[in-house]
Amino acid sequence: MKIARLVHENNETYGFVKGDKVATKDEITYLTGVPIPYNVKDFLFDGWFDEIKNKIQDLPYEENLSKFKLLAPIPNPNKIICLAFNYVDHAEEQGLTAPEDPAIVIKPRTALNGNNSHIECPDFVTQLDYEIELALIIGKNCKNINPDEAKNVIFGYMVFNDVSARDIQFKDKQFTRGKSFDSFAPCGPWITTADEIQDAQNLKLTTKINGELRQNSSTNNMFIKIPEIISKISKVMTLEKGDIISTGTPAGVMLNKPNAVFLKDGDKVEMEIEGLGILNNTVKVVKSI
Amino acid sequence: MKIARLVHENNETYGFVKGDKVATKDEITYLTGVPIPYNVKDFLFDGWFDEIKNKIQDLPYEENLSKFKLLAPIPNPNKIICLAFNYVDHAEEQGLTAPEDPAIVIKPRTALNGNNSHIECPDFVTQLDYEIELALIIGKNCKNINPDEAKNVIFGYMVFNDVSARDIQFKDKQFTRGKSFDSFAPCGPWITTADEIQDAQNLKLTTKINGELRQNSSTNNMFIKIPEIISKISKVMTLEKGDIISTGTPAGVMLNKPNAVFLKDGDKVEMEIEGLGILNNTVKVVKSI
Repeated sequence: MKIARLVHENNETYGFVKGDKVATKDEITYLTGVPIPYNVKDFLFDGWFDEIKNKIQDLPYEENLSKFKLLAPIPNPNKIICLAFNYVDHAEEQGLTAPEDPAIVIKPRTALNGNNSHIECPDFVTQLDYEIELALIIGKNCKNINPDEAKNVIFGYMVFNDVSARDIQFKDKQFTRGKSFDSFAPCGPWITTADEIQDAQNLKLTTKINGELRQNSSTNNMFIKIPEIISKISKVMTLEKGDIISTGTPAGVMLNKPNAVFLKDGDKVEMEIEGLGILNNTVKVVKSI
Repeated sequence: MKIARLVHENNETYGFVKGDKVATKDEITYLTGVPIPYNVKDFLFDGWFDEIKNKIQDLPYEENLSKFKLLAPIPNPNKIICLAFNYVDHAEEQGLTAPEDPAIVIKPRTALNGNNSHIECPDFVTQLDYEIELALIIGKNCKNINPDEAKNVIFGYMVFNDVSARDIQFKDKQFTRGKSFDSFAPCGPWITTADEIQDAQNLKLTTKINGELRQNSSTNNMFIKIPEIISKISKVMTLEKGDIISTGTPAGVMLNKPNAVFLKDGDKVEMEIEGLGILNNTVKVVKSI
């Protein structure tokens, strides 16, 4: 399934997406007879999805998707963990070797952003950059997971843009502040459940800026593969339902590029991962204090 | 007030601490007639504290504090933000100049730990280090706060130990993974409300390891002072009720020290900040997969 968080005239809901149509929570409850919860996190991770899975084959998908604005699919994750330098092609373009263990940064939930929203860039940021990433959504609380068990804890996938202020990254050396601005974690457009993706380690990813192709790679170029990512992070911290792990970006970002053209007001960022949909955002420069 | 999260025979509650005595939630409700909520975050940040403030002058404080185990005072903060290199004496011992803007790391909430609990060190970590820090607890959702408004958004203070695996910090260069292990954020022993602390920028901090004095400084040695910390971070991200900002550690940690003696199994870590109480933890090495 493709599960989206939706808003229409200030009413928030969620639903299943099929092409340009959507079956909303109320429609699903009406047709299945199961009073699924208001909160999408409760629906996804507290057994409700499993309960209705077999009753939703014949949903009519009555609403047009275009009627709704899409929100970040997970409203309040306990963690948003982003890997640095995990693509062989990206590490090479930086003159680095990808590290054996995941170098991570944690973004605050206040950075979350949905499809077709603005990436709000404060006016004091001078080097705004994009990073397309495959994000994993964790479906179970777990610790010390072996790589061969990792697929059991993945609920689904989505596109994630690890927006980064390079000037601040370089100034601080630690990457967290430059990646933590409000709106710097656009994701979605929806969650695609794990059963729909045959091989998450072999998906094409592309970033276009104002229509120009900038990133064009495959998740196959990850250095630490998905099962190892989950295993290695779960040796450090307990993973929880709804946690987001974003698995690093491939080559093609502006970081350290000679004649880098950083994002500016009005730029259109279009990110696509095979089977997961297209995430669209526009840059807007905002005044700070 | 000093507000602690308490547990006794698997029953979690919270209460006010006075010396070695405590007035629990049930006692407070009974004596004030105000049915304060079960969840301490709701109590602290949704107006309840203000509502009962004037009714609690004569609480009898009937229970002994020693009856309870103390938990991390904020159960589920949206953010735990830690500053790196913010004390002049610590930056100097590292041969660095403290940065003008806060270099931050975000810890996951799964790292939280309370008083008298173990700091659980996985057996693959070789350089376990301590960092005493003054933690601010944010009381209001806010963005773009001017330094002169900062004190209005601080609910209270507590002691915070930014436990760090130096071997992993150095390997990753990014500090997040080495600071994110479960149990690596001991804090408390309770929250001291802001009105009880006359000058948070002039508090003595000490760390003793097995009784030996290792850190001995004053919050006056912070490079970026508290109002500027809040202002600068709030220019990046929306701060939320219950967010924890830990303001950096003074000199005396083992990081980069010749003949460093890192923490080992059984070591007793005792951290005290003037007026905020003593935070005690013991190191326990645990087997990983």
